[in-house]
Amino acid sequence: MFSLQRNLLFAVIPVFLCSSIQADDPLPSWNETSPKHRLIQYVKDSTTEGESFIPVEERIAVFDNDGTLWPENPLPFQLIFAIDEIRRLAPSHPEWKEDKLVQAVLKGDVKTLKESGRKGLGKLLAMTHTGITTVEFETRVQNWLKTAKHPRFDRPYNELGYQPMLELLAYLRANGFQTWIVSGGGVDFMRVWTEEAYGIPRNQIVGSVGKTHFEMRDGTPVLIKDPEIDFVDDKAGKPVAIHRQIGRRPRGAFGNSDGDYEMLQWTTIGHAPSIGLIVHHTDADREYAYDKAPKSSGKLIKGLEDAAKRNWIVVDMKKDWKRVFSAE
Amino acid sequence: MFSLQRNLLFAVIPVFLCSSIQADDPLPSWNETSPKHRLIQYVKDSTTEGESFIPVEERIAVFDNDGTLWPENPLPFQLIFAIDEIRRLAPSHPEWKEDKLVQAVLKGDVKTLKESGRKGLGKLLAMTHTGITTVEFETRVQNWLKTAKHPRFDRPYNELGYQPMLELLAYLRANGFQTWIVSGGGVDFMRVWTEEAYGIPRNQIVGSVGKTHFEMRDGTPVLIKDPEIDFVDDKAGKPVAIHRQIGRRPRGAFGNSDGDYEMLQWTTIGHAPSIGLIVHHTDADREYAYDKAPKSSGKLIKGLEDAAKRNWIVVDMKKDWKRVFSAE
Repeated sequence: MFSLQRNLLFAVIPVFLCSSIQADDPLPSWNETSPKHRLIQYVKDSTTEGESFIPVEERIAVFDNDGTLWPENPLPFQLIFAIDEIRRLAPSHPEWKEDKLVQAVLKGDVKTLKESGRKGLGKLLAMTHTGITTVEFETRVQNWLKTAKHPRFDRPYNELGYQPMLELLAYLRANGFQTWIVSGGGVDFMRVWTEEAYGIPRNQIVGSVGKTHFEMRDGTPVLIKDPEIDFVDDKAGKPVAIHRQIGRRPRGAFGNSDGDYEMLQWTTIGHAPSIGLIVHHTDADREYAYDKAPKSSGKLIKGLEDAAKRNWIVVDMKKDWKRVFSAE
Repeated sequence: MFSLQRNLLFAVIPVFLCSSIQADDPLPSWNETSPKHRLIQYVKDSTTEGESFIPVEERIAVFDNDGTLWPENPLPFQLIFAIDEIRRLAPSHPEWKEDKLVQAVLKGDVKTLKESGRKGLGKLLAMTHTGITTVEFETRVQNWLKTAKHPRFDRPYNELGYQPMLELLAYLRANGFQTWIVSGGGVDFMRVWTEEAYGIPRNQIVGSVGKTHFEMRDGTPVLIKDPEIDFVDDKAGKPVAIHRQIGRRPRGAFGNSDGDYEMLQWTTIGHAPSIGLIVHHTDADREYAYDKAPKSSGKLIKGLEDAAKRNWIVVDMKKDWKRVFSAE
C-alpha cells in the first residue's frame, strides 16, 4: 500500500504543478507587456465584487475571425476554399470552360481575379457555396479541411488559430464569459470547425448569411443554399447582427480591422465596464505585417487612430506575443 | 444542541419531500394520459445510453410562443401591445387625427381593423415599434407589462405562460436540453420578458426581425429600429431561422399551429431520435377552443391531419392538462 500511495503521489504532483502554472499564468503565450496585464486585470475586475463587476449573464465577448483568431493571408481562407473548390469541381462542369473567371482560377491568373472585384468574388462564392443542401456544403468544407494546407505554414487551415488568442478564449470562458464569433465570413463555413478549433459552439457564430430555403425532397426535409446574399456581417452590420443573435451589448470586443470598428464602438462607448482590443499585424517574420494597405482584407486605419482615445488595447503581434501558432 | 438538531431535521424534511415529489413527477400539471407518458419516455431515452440517446450538444428543443407557451387570444399579445401603444401615444401625435386606422383603434372599431388586413397590421407595428432605439423600445415593452392586464384572465400578460409547458421547459433543461423560442413574434418584443417568464435567455430567442441600423448619436452608439421587415419567422421560415441561429436540427419541436408545420418536419422527419408535439386548443372553459377557423392566429389543419402518420404528440388541452395557468 505504501508504494501505491507513493506512486499516486508522484502521479499527482505534475498535474498539480500544471494546474498551478495555468492558474498563475492563464496567458502563457503572451509577453509580459501591457496588453497581457490589462487583459488579466479586466478579467479580475469583471469577476470581483466592485464597480467593475460584470454579472455572469452579461459576460459576452465577441471576436472577429479573419485576422483576429486566424490569418487572412495570402487570401481569406474561405476564398481559398472557394478557389480550391472551383478546381475540384471544374472537370464535372464542362460549361465552365467558356468562363473567364473559372479559367483565371485554373491558371492561377491572380490579375484577372483581382480585376473581377466584388462581383467576381460573389460569383466564385455562388458557384461553390450554393445550389446544394446545407448538409452537402458542410461535407465539402469538412473534406477540404482534411486535405488542404496553408501554402506558407504547411498546416491544415483549422490548425492555424493564433495560440495567444486561443488562450484568451479559454481564459475568458473559465471566468464565465460566453465567447462568440462575429465575422464577415459565412456562418455555414465557420460552423464546421469552430467548436473543435476554438471551443465555440455552433450557435455562437454570427456571420454573413446567404439566403436559404426549405423544401421536402423525396420525402425528406432539406435546406437549400441560394445564391442571393441575405446579410453581410461587416462594419455597421456587426452591431446589428450582435443585437439580432445575442440580444445584449457585449462587454468585450476583439478585432483587427476597420471592419470591427463599429463593433468596438457598440461594445465600449458609454458602456463600462468593457474592453476593446485590436490585433495589429506587425510580424512579417512569424506571420504578416499590414494595416493601411493590406494585400487582401484587414485594412486598419480608423481603429489605430482612435485606439488611445477609446482606451482600446492595441496588440503588437511582434512585441506582445511569444508565439503566433501552437508548437506543432 | 439536541433541540437545534431536531429543528434542523424538521426544517429539512419538507424540502426533501418536495424534491422527491418533483423527481418522481416532473410534470405535475399534466394528467396521466399518453402525452405525459410519451414526453417522460422521450427524456428518459434521450439521456440513457442506447439507440435513442442524444449527446448533450444535440439536445435542442424549439418552442413556438403564441398559442404554445402563452395564449394568442383575443389577439396575439404583441398586437394588443401595439394597440395599447397607439392609445398611449395618440395625444402626442396630432397628425394621427386624420388617420382612419388610428381612429379605428381609438374607437375600438374591430371591423375596420380587421378589414385593414396585413397592411394595416404592418402599419400599426411600424407606428409603435420603429423610429426609436432598441433601448427605448425595450422600455416601452417593460412599462406595458407593468400595467396591462389580459381582458379575460385579469393578469399581466407575462404571467400567462401555460403551467404544463413551463414544467416541460424546466424538465427538459434539467435533462441537459437547450430550450429555444422559435416564434413569429418579434425578437425585440420577446426578449424583454422571456428570461423571467420561461427561463429562456435573450440569445435563445428566434423570431421575426425588423431592419435595424447602427449610428452614433451625440457621441453614443445606438441601434435604430426601422420600419422595414427583415425576416418573418413563420412556416418555411422557421427551419431557415433555426439553421441560421442554432445551426443544428433540433431534437424536439413544440408548436400549436400550421405555422409550426415545417419546423416539426425539419425536426422529426428522417431525424431520429426526435419528438414533435402540437398543443391543440380544446378548452373553451379554461382557455380557448380553436383549430380550423381561429378568431385570430393559430390555424391548425395540416398538423392535425398528419400528426398520427408523423408520430407527433397531439395535446388535448382539456383532457391532458390538469391546469392551464399557475395558481395565483
